[in-house]
Amino acid sequence: MAGGNGKLAILGGPKSVTVEKLDRWETMTGEMIQRVKRVVEGEGLSTRGQQLARELEEGFAAFIGARHTVSQHNGTSTLWASFFALGVGPGDEVIHPDFTWICSIAPAMALGARPVFCEIDPKTFLIDPEDIERRITPRTKAISVVHWGGNVCDMDPIMEVANRHGIPVIEDCSHAHGASYGGKKVGTIGAIGGFSFQGVPGEGKPICGGELGMVATMDRRLYERVLLFGHVGRIDLMDKLHDPAHRRLAPYGLGLNFRPHPLGVAIAQVQFARIREQNEKRWAYTQKIIRGLEEVPGIDPLYIYPKAQPGGLFMGLQARYRPEDLGGLPRERYCKALQAEGVRVRAGAYADAFGASAAGVRHFPYHQLPPFSRGFDFYTHGRGPLWEGYEGYASSDYPQTRAALSRMLQLPILTDPEDGVVEQFLEAFWKVAKGYKSIL
Amino acid sequence: MAGGNGKLAILGGPKSVTVEKLDRWETMTGEMIQRVKRVVEGEGLSTRGQQLARELEEGFAAFIGARHTVSQHNGTSTLWASFFALGVGPGDEVIHPDFTWICSIAPAMALGARPVFCEIDPKTFLIDPEDIERRITPRTKAISVVHWGGNVCDMDPIMEVANRHGIPVIEDCSHAHGASYGGKKVGTIGAIGGFSFQGVPGEGKPICGGELGMVATMDRRLYERVLLFGHVGRIDLMDKLHDPAHRRLAPYGLGLNFRPHPLGVAIAQVQFARIREQNEKRWAYTQKIIRGLEEVPGIDPLYIYPKAQPGGLFMGLQARYRPEDLGGLPRERYCKALQAEGVRVRAGAYADAFGASAAGVRHFPYHQLPPFSRGFDFYTHGRGPLWEGYEGYASSDYPQTRAALSRMLQLPILTDPEDGVVEQFLEAFWKVAKGYKSIL
Repeated sequence: MAGGNGKLAILGGPKSVTVEKLDRWETMTGEMIQRVKRVVEGEGLSTRGQQLARELEEGFAAFIGARHTVSQHNGTSTLWASFFALGVGPGDEVIHPDFTWICSIAPAMALGARPVFCEIDPKTFLIDPEDIERRITPRTKAISVVHWGGNVCDMDPIMEVANRHGIPVIEDCSHAHGASYGGKKVGTIGAIGGFSFQGVPGEGKPICGGELGMVATMDRRLYERVLLFGHVGRIDLMDKLHDPAHRRLAPYGLGLNFRPHPLGVAIAQVQFARIREQNEKRWAYTQKIIRGLEEVPGIDPLYIYPKAQPGGLFMGLQARYRPEDLGGLPRERYCKALQAEGVRVRAGAYADAFGASAAGVRHFPYHQLPPFSRGFDFYTHGRGPLWEGYEGYASSDYPQTRAALSRMLQLPILTDPEDGVVEQFLEAFWKVAKGYKSIL
Repeated sequence: MAGGNGKLAILGGPKSVTVEKLDRWETMTGEMIQRVKRVVEGEGLSTRGQQLARELEEGFAAFIGARHTVSQHNGTSTLWASFFALGVGPGDEVIHPDFTWICSIAPAMALGARPVFCEIDPKTFLIDPEDIERRITPRTKAISVVHWGGNVCDMDPIMEVANRHGIPVIEDCSHAHGASYGGKKVGTIGAIGGFSFQGVPGEGKPICGGELGMVATMDRRLYERVLLFGHVGRIDLMDKLHDPAHRRLAPYGLGLNFRPHPLGVAIAQVQFARIREQNEKRWAYTQKIIRGLEEVPGIDPLYIYPKAQPGGLFMGLQARYRPEDLGGLPRERYCKALQAEGVRVRAGAYADAFGASAAGVRHFPYHQLPPFSRGFDFYTHGRGPLWEGYEGYASSDYPQTRAALSRMLQLPILTDPEDGVVEQFLEAFWKVAKGYKSIL
């Protein structure tokens, strides 16, 4: 691709991106309001309204090929129930990638387990299968893999090491609705998977209902333990518990409540009806961007493992910055130049979100986050997973992850880009790559 | 009151209750749909929409006179966060009434604490202050009191024994929105309180949003610990953490997520706007029923402690059956006779809910419920609060609670009864009391 030889927009030149509305994908607000109205006017807000949730569970199970699915009020709770199902408890260790979202770690910690971090693969920002085995100890109870951004972890080597050690894998599929690996949808490859359906259409998860989540598993025993943990009051609870050890906890299970909000279910159904179409469109856009960036100096586009098929593609499209191509131009300056051209590129993930900058705290890698780097007296009086015998982490630990994240870029994800948008995006990258010396 | 000398309806006589629509109180469905519509059409579903929840928190704090309130996705999570705030953890014991709802116990157990049951006062079905002290051990970390049905526990003697032992009191106010004791609203008397706003208007909690809850406390430190536990992503999280020990857990706290559903907040605001009026009306109805039943053989109406002012009045109006007045007429037969007259009276609480009968399980008292009576390997491999050294309970334990529950009745709660309904209800009680011999 040629083009983009002009004066950079950050220096007062013309912007590369002139299309005003980038994405033609509609949020279907009218349809959502109609569905919500039917629930509020009918019986959908009461416990009798659980039928709505059952329909979404069945539809989603068919979509990903899972034997069992359970809807819950958010993604965090799906991982909480999943770790519980796996028997994670006090004294256990769980292996997590050093780059993830904290809600992927916290539920295991709340059950009493200590997080043990693992390097990420610099090409994908996903858990590095080669580092997992080094982190396994006799206390390792589960391996948590996160299909961050909708890209898919390298499941063959992960499952090989997990199976060899007899340790179950939990998949965090919050960003990866409908992604697959070797033809199997994520959430059905490890022992159990959790999906977040959080947020608002357009900027939330691909399937979203404000706050909502879904557990998936192929394993009847794990499914029953999920129901036992957080589904007091579920109208079909007793019908679903077959194992005598579970039935003896009738009629409430353990008495916790992770029930989804019925209006979250109603809204999510609107997006769920279009998830296949949305995934196809996002993947077409992603492929164009990846192919277009392959020749552009300064950036390596997202790497995808040979058997992986990304899906969902929440958060943005990751790429790796190569300052060595651009005379050492700092990443932040590179991003600013692209932003001036009209491409919403971010340096790293979750930048400046949640008041982190104000608090003077680095978000990543996770071993540097205060609760993990220094420990925390979770239950007071020196009790809890990050207390006795816990030494914390030094910021110099996990050099591979630190180096990878220092290069991370996030490009915008579009679903149905307006004509010319992809070309203008690519023009912007070329323009900055060719004109970088003017902003060194 | 006279009347009711005719043939019982259960034997083919005329029904006492002839009014068709018992309650004039409207559910305001139109207003709820309008509010939900504004949220779905605007930005209310995204994290920016948290402003809605802030408004409900501030309004509710002003209503009950609490210094701090935090909205969460359901009532169970409010107690979970409250127990965490109090430092409840592995090895601790928490004292619970032997008659409650399991969601009031399970969160403490999930934090690793063992439930220790306490007798209830037969006059009120609420925790018996005289039995609390006998249940205190060096491991007791909290005393949980439940304002069941919207009636109020006898807080003076409870706080006296709690303060003398230096043990904090947690109030489960799920049924008791706006109830008070000695002029102080529940949720502000103990150290911390949790409210459920679950259900559908008309049959759910007085303030309800499908699924929703609210924590209240006067204690800044507990408030900050509630935020730390389950409020990752709360936009004002860092502004609210003042204690340096809490600020060092920036920017996410512990990374769990108990955020409420924004549409739950929108719906709850409609009921919240009318809670004072609803409480006044329910209390007027309740007083009429109590006064009217005082002279009726076979039933003792709800007892209210001298300093208590019931509020919320969810679940029904409790009363005590006196079979000795009616020739030993079985409670179930008595209820059926009243039901035939048109009064929806139940024997006990939560009867036949949640498939319990099908599972052959007694719900109450709680020491008889399987997880508590026999223990449960919560984390697998013999770990958890109900395992090592746990002996369970015998069904013959807690004789006072068992005797009390064997007499429990639940009468319907109405908010704005149609003219003549209360009189017809009372006529039905008189009719059965006078004609009991015909159904012995």
